[in-house]
Amino acid sequence: MEAKDVKELYEEIESLMNQEVKLQGWIRNHRKQKEFGFIDFTDGTDFQTVQVVYDDKLDDFLEIQKLRVGSAIEVIGKVMKSPAKGQVFEIQAEKVVLLGDSPEDYPIQPKRHTREFLREQAYLRPRTNLFGAVFRVRSVAAMAIHEYFQSHNYVYVHTPLITTADCEGSDQMFKITTLDLNHLPKTEDGQVDMSKDLFGKQAYVTGTGQLHGEAFAMAYKKIYTFGPTFRTENSNTKTHANEFWMIEPEIAFCDLDGLMNIEEEMLKFVVNYVLEKCPKEIAFFDQFVEKGLKEKLSKLVQAKFTRISHHDVIDILKKADKEWEFTPSYDGDIAKEHEKYITEYIHGPVFNTDWPKDIKAWYMKVNEDGKTVAAVDLEVPGAGELMGGSQREEDYDKLMERIKENNIDQSTVDWFCNLRRYGGCYHSGFGMGFERLLIYLTGVDNIRDVIPFPRTPNNCEY
Amino acid sequence: MEAKDVKELYEEIESLMNQEVKLQGWIRNHRKQKEFGFIDFTDGTDFQTVQVVYDDKLDDFLEIQKLRVGSAIEVIGKVMKSPAKGQVFEIQAEKVVLLGDSPEDYPIQPKRHTREFLREQAYLRPRTNLFGAVFRVRSVAAMAIHEYFQSHNYVYVHTPLITTADCEGSDQMFKITTLDLNHLPKTEDGQVDMSKDLFGKQAYVTGTGQLHGEAFAMAYKKIYTFGPTFRTENSNTKTHANEFWMIEPEIAFCDLDGLMNIEEEMLKFVVNYVLEKCPKEIAFFDQFVEKGLKEKLSKLVQAKFTRISHHDVIDILKKADKEWEFTPSYDGDIAKEHEKYITEYIHGPVFNTDWPKDIKAWYMKVNEDGKTVAAVDLEVPGAGELMGGSQREEDYDKLMERIKENNIDQSTVDWFCNLRRYGGCYHSGFGMGFERLLIYLTGVDNIRDVIPFPRTPNNCEY
Repeated sequence: MEAKDVKELYEEIESLMNQEVKLQGWIRNHRKQKEFGFIDFTDGTDFQTVQVVYDDKLDDFLEIQKLRVGSAIEVIGKVMKSPAKGQVFEIQAEKVVLLGDSPEDYPIQPKRHTREFLREQAYLRPRTNLFGAVFRVRSVAAMAIHEYFQSHNYVYVHTPLITTADCEGSDQMFKITTLDLNHLPKTEDGQVDMSKDLFGKQAYVTGTGQLHGEAFAMAYKKIYTFGPTFRTENSNTKTHANEFWMIEPEIAFCDLDGLMNIEEEMLKFVVNYVLEKCPKEIAFFDQFVEKGLKEKLSKLVQAKFTRISHHDVIDILKKADKEWEFTPSYDGDIAKEHEKYITEYIHGPVFNTDWPKDIKAWYMKVNEDGKTVAAVDLEVPGAGELMGGSQREEDYDKLMERIKENNIDQSTVDWFCNLRRYGGCYHSGFGMGFERLLIYLTGVDNIRDVIPFPRTPNNCEY
Repeated sequence: MEAKDVKELYEEIESLMNQEVKLQGWIRNHRKQKEFGFIDFTDGTDFQTVQVVYDDKLDDFLEIQKLRVGSAIEVIGKVMKSPAKGQVFEIQAEKVVLLGDSPEDYPIQPKRHTREFLREQAYLRPRTNLFGAVFRVRSVAAMAIHEYFQSHNYVYVHTPLITTADCEGSDQMFKITTLDLNHLPKTEDGQVDMSKDLFGKQAYVTGTGQLHGEAFAMAYKKIYTFGPTFRTENSNTKTHANEFWMIEPEIAFCDLDGLMNIEEEMLKFVVNYVLEKCPKEIAFFDQFVEKGLKEKLSKLVQAKFTRISHHDVIDILKKADKEWEFTPSYDGDIAKEHEKYITEYIHGPVFNTDWPKDIKAWYMKVNEDGKTVAAVDLEVPGAGELMGGSQREEDYDKLMERIKENNIDQSTVDWFCNLRRYGGCYHSGFGMGFERLLIYLTGVDNIRDVIPFPRTPNNCEY
């Protein structure tokens, strides 16, 4: 007999009732009585456990009673209507076999563990309710993103992580090398001789696939990337990690308004997909992590996203009857306190457009006013900035000007600029940090808790 | 009017016939006659171009005639039955507007370019028929993999790329650092002081997610990874790249036979998915890249995969009436010439099982004979080894022995070994190089031509 996934049990319960099934998984909890016992059983395919009931009519009743939490077992038994409240069925065990033991001091006991403790048990924490739910939502949300883009004719592009271009500012990128750091080859003038390295020069792991994505958008019209990204930031906050995942769509023949349409449609699709595919996880987060989470997500799917320029945002902030820590400025960035105020003032998600060009990236399209760029940040209540995007500068000469203004080494982005010469067209793209989305979807507020094995300064265990 | 994707045109042609549509894309080819002209138009959403016909009744006829190959244009026109053979429809242009010019010396002209030349134009090559098809198949095959695993209740795990474990052999991994190589901090004994680096020790980018995948399989039963992987190999062959993508599923309660079932089912699903979603691309490869490709792929979907032990393979090789460059040995690896012979001898895909333990990895399960491990390589006609997997050693003490035998630094894999102590169970997994699959799917025989921006020794442009 082939083992059933617990997920299949829940999905096919009507046809399985009174049938014999085989299950393989782990003991979450074990309550023993004199003549019978209850095993909280999981195989990890479903958020919900299954109750396995056994009694002293089984030959190895005493052996089964010794089974400890965390052990791997195989259960053969009958699916029966459950007398217990709120539980549709249980398994009446005919046979319970130990497949893998677990010791008395198994770290994940059926009690409340702090997230800090579980972070130190990163390889075991997906076995808990909380992290089991978080990392399943991570998987389902990733699939939602692929489904959205693929069903809209986007091509998924694996942009390279290793790069020799330093257009982002190489001080923010990890250097990679095959050289022996204790015996570095030197040139005549005493500098490290990078020509001896595998790529013949200093290479980095990159923080964005956008530039390469643009090249592919000029071939396929609509593309997206979805892959890991690296930042060297030496910053220990709830929202910073040195390795995380990004989604970067890029769309030809798309202006800023078109881009906002796509951002809004995609986000609603993903949120709705997770609501539909992970109702048990969402209910759990709603109850134990963020009260009102489900309502927050359902509201977003229905919401009309507001579009408002940076200039008008500053107007609103200046008129507000508030003491600001950072004074709102038409030339400046928008602080967290401002973001919060605006999403509350607007009472919903806000596309904040047309930013002062000097605080935004060099490849963004300069508006006709010569002062602002066609950039857009999406601010979502309870999440802050979820996406950042822009229309790209498609004019070769204007791009060159910006490159000079920003002291970019043009030689490393020559090919990128040439895209403007060879059938370049107006186009736009955005980036979404996947972990930021997950924090929003789960209510879990620390990036370390939505990444399977997080990497932060001085923290690269496992 | 919103622009249609060319793909939508082909899909909805019946309802669009005689309708007016707007298209945005690029000129692939332009043939001019005195009173009319034909534009081969693409927007990259479909392999097939669309013929746009215009004539001198248009006001700007002379302007349109000047449009060059590679230019971005917008076309408004009527979808008409085409008089041309083998072409269902064409667009009778009412308006053609230049959106982005392309110069006379645009590198991608409508003629045959060598793959070597196009490799040097990596940022433009997806605009050609060949690479346009290759990278679309790459995207569709990636989606197929996600669909297979997600629909079978697997959890997609983003295993970390940055690692401090050197269990694979750190000489095969890129070192990463934030330190200034020209001013490295030193310890008292003159060595580089890695404690000053961002993670407080030497970190690497990894070549596998398997170890972390196993931890998650012990929570979710079935998981897969799909992400970039790095190797420092200084090797210039058709099958080596320093950055590539891998799929690594890991399944609890799964033995070697179960693993082979999954490998076979998954591969057939993916091949079939690509055959169904990319018929035009496959027909193109079949005609211009690898004659018989379509039949090869269709056959695979129908094939019964043979399972045969390494020992029996050596028997067959020894009995073969052939002069071998490498003498087949019961203790040894199987050379390319052997692989080829066996798939031809068996006349189909072959699972080659139970390999001598000394030539396989330390984490593989030692069979009862004490000499072989429960490993399996899948050899596919015309592709060679497509996947490599094994049942994992689930016995803590036996694993410790293997760790000692193989001089692995146990302290870096303590947590991994502990998985055997905490409800460990029999489990198996495999790895599939995504590019190897793509080479098989497209017939394109050089890994540099199935990676958007390939990285190989001394080659990290773009």
